[in-house]
Amino acid sequence: MTTVSWVEGSQDGGFGVENLPYGIFARPGELPRVGVAIGDLVLDLAELSAAGLVEDRRYFASGSLNAFMVAGRPAWQANRERLTELLTDESHRARVEPHLIPVAEVGLLRPFEVADYADFFSSEYHAVNAARIFKLRGEPLKPNWKRMPVAYHGRSGTVYPSGTPIIRPSGQRRAAGEAEPSYGPSLRLDFEAEVGFVAGVPSKAGRGVPTGAFRDHVFGFVLVNDWSARDLQMWESQPLGPFLGKSFATSISPWVVPVAALEPARVAPPVQDPAPLPYLRCDEPWGLDLHLEVLINGQVAARPPFASMYWTPPQQLAHATVNGAPLRTGDLFASGTVSGPERDQRGCMLELSWGGEEPLELDDGTKRTYLEDGDTVTIRAQAPGASGSRITMGEVTGTVHPAL
Amino acid sequence: MTTVSWVEGSQDGGFGVENLPYGIFARPGELPRVGVAIGDLVLDLAELSAAGLVEDRRYFASGSLNAFMVAGRPAWQANRERLTELLTDESHRARVEPHLIPVAEVGLLRPFEVADYADFFSSEYHAVNAARIFKLRGEPLKPNWKRMPVAYHGRSGTVYPSGTPIIRPSGQRRAAGEAEPSYGPSLRLDFEAEVGFVAGVPSKAGRGVPTGAFRDHVFGFVLVNDWSARDLQMWESQPLGPFLGKSFATSISPWVVPVAALEPARVAPPVQDPAPLPYLRCDEPWGLDLHLEVLINGQVAARPPFASMYWTPPQQLAHATVNGAPLRTGDLFASGTVSGPERDQRGCMLELSWGGEEPLELDDGTKRTYLEDGDTVTIRAQAPGASGSRITMGEVTGTVHPAL
Repeated sequence: MTTVSWVEGSQDGGFGVENLPYGIFARPGELPRVGVAIGDLVLDLAELSAAGLVEDRRYFASGSLNAFMVAGRPAWQANRERLTELLTDESHRARVEPHLIPVAEVGLLRPFEVADYADFFSSEYHAVNAARIFKLRGEPLKPNWKRMPVAYHGRSGTVYPSGTPIIRPSGQRRAAGEAEPSYGPSLRLDFEAEVGFVAGVPSKAGRGVPTGAFRDHVFGFVLVNDWSARDLQMWESQPLGPFLGKSFATSISPWVVPVAALEPARVAPPVQDPAPLPYLRCDEPWGLDLHLEVLINGQVAARPPFASMYWTPPQQLAHATVNGAPLRTGDLFASGTVSGPERDQRGCMLELSWGGEEPLELDDGTKRTYLEDGDTVTIRAQAPGASGSRITMGEVTGTVHPAL
Repeated sequence: MTTVSWVEGSQDGGFGVENLPYGIFARPGELPRVGVAIGDLVLDLAELSAAGLVEDRRYFASGSLNAFMVAGRPAWQANRERLTELLTDESHRARVEPHLIPVAEVGLLRPFEVADYADFFSSEYHAVNAARIFKLRGEPLKPNWKRMPVAYHGRSGTVYPSGTPIIRPSGQRRAAGEAEPSYGPSLRLDFEAEVGFVAGVPSKAGRGVPTGAFRDHVFGFVLVNDWSARDLQMWESQPLGPFLGKSFATSISPWVVPVAALEPARVAPPVQDPAPLPYLRCDEPWGLDLHLEVLINGQVAARPPFASMYWTPPQQLAHATVNGAPLRTGDLFASGTVSGPERDQRGCMLELSWGGEEPLELDDGTKRTYLEDGDTVTIRAQAPGASGSRITMGEVTGTVHPAL
């Protein structure tokens, strides 16, 4: 299929017809509703539905994607096919064009209501680097690490849309060599470049979601910045894991890229040795060739390769549900920091500055160990799309504000 | 105030007029709505409101307490005073009595929609016992334990109402001495007797909730059974804490006891040494003299004293928000296992059977290390109420079903 949209220039920026990500947008003074990105325009699905050009108007006048996400894969597929037809067949142009709005004229909101949020730890490079930086005893990888995609639950109430100001968190931290903890704003504020997927179709309690059923439950992918206060995190995390060091903010990108759009990005993941238990085995390759880019104040700080992730999304989902915990619509699962083998592929300042010991120098000569007030962090990603195209996941951005 | 309700026998079972806990109930074939327990009856607030006997009918026709919880302390206080008046002044009897329904004729549902769920670890006895049982290196308490109420986020989507069947979870576990993990139903299924509080009034992002503002945000208390699969938990928990070992099920009691009803139960907590950081200091004593009782198949297995908890609810709330994470209506915070200094005061089988090494013998001669399929665990609690009364928190119960 070598379809090209009649929307001029739509194939250039990664929002071509091979992508068609969903989001929630609002024009000033109007109610939020569902839109799809095409080029630098937003296709207003609520209007399109009201005009009878797509089915299922009940989904698209909503201020969140949840209603459409729960509709399931047949509805997602049918709508994707119809949108492709409308945007590529010149004969529809006159009727569709009135419902295209420049993205610059709208606000992009949080795309879905988050039910539960879990965060994995699936990059071997990140896990090994973090253990070395923290000078943990023994082997850098715990014995469970290559047996299961390790994860923890985060705070869903602080999953924010891209652009939300990030207020520097305060809390307890104890610096190396100090006997007493102290209270104050975090001195080691960090980002974590991650990729998340969101569940659309719930699953039944007591039964897991097999790796082969991933597409039946998962609606799409977003970019995630799992903001982290390393000093708070280090002091609090034993024995129950991260809490306040993470729970102040997690940012997600406005566009949810459908699973179908990322099929051409599927690649073989790293070899898994030892072989995982049967419930974690996957018949298909589910590594994803997503190329992330992290910018600090507009300057490239890292280019983490998602294809290097040890555990794949279907394995993460199978693991998270193997105990019978049911999925809800809006459950968000993030990958954990994406880091590759090279120094400039590390997905957080903890690694990029090696625990603050080796400041990262940006193109303009400024140096960073951790984030400073006023810093803007942007994560973007692109991937192979259908028909030899490149598609983008858009970006997630946030600016650090001083502690209150 | 020595008020007695005209509801016959209401002072006997702990649901006297000093208690007045809120819940959600439904009669067969009818929509769920808000009720208040009095004696062995439920007062139908939706009907009472429709009859003009209490204000704010918009809150009470709802299938969850969230709308009333967000209304805030003045509304909670006004309604409590009005209900007390209606239930103690004989002159109201004729108009109120038609809206009393035997609790045996209704179903009690999940009382509120859970936003985020966090679980603390605030019993020193439990923390020390767990470390000894797991034979952890070094001091049983980590250096942070007496500096902050350690906690982690749990899964809000699996917070279930009392009575929900607990399906034995499956997952990975690695027995002591085994090199390889295996997959299967948990062999070490446990309960944890806990007490939780639920937020009603949201807080602002970037600012914490001081200990002195506890009553302005917290609606009330429930009993919590934090079901735990010890084998899954032990194998997965390093370094990010519990995940699947907890996320399959958490049960809560149907009645939410208002903070006001537990004021007479406030006692001095254990001495905190070292003194906590200023944000954790509390002007008032906020230990709570709740007497828990755990029953396995109707036989008393333990009597954990909540007054022995090292960290108090206002300290837990201040800590959970000190990083600026805002509260949402429905945020649930559980205490962690309640264990006292005595053997029969331990709040989970892990401790009661000392890691499975010393089976617990019940009154009927049956023995337990961990829970077996078919076991029913019930947690109940009572506390001093106003006017020298005793009030109850009701009970939370669940029966273990075989893995699917």
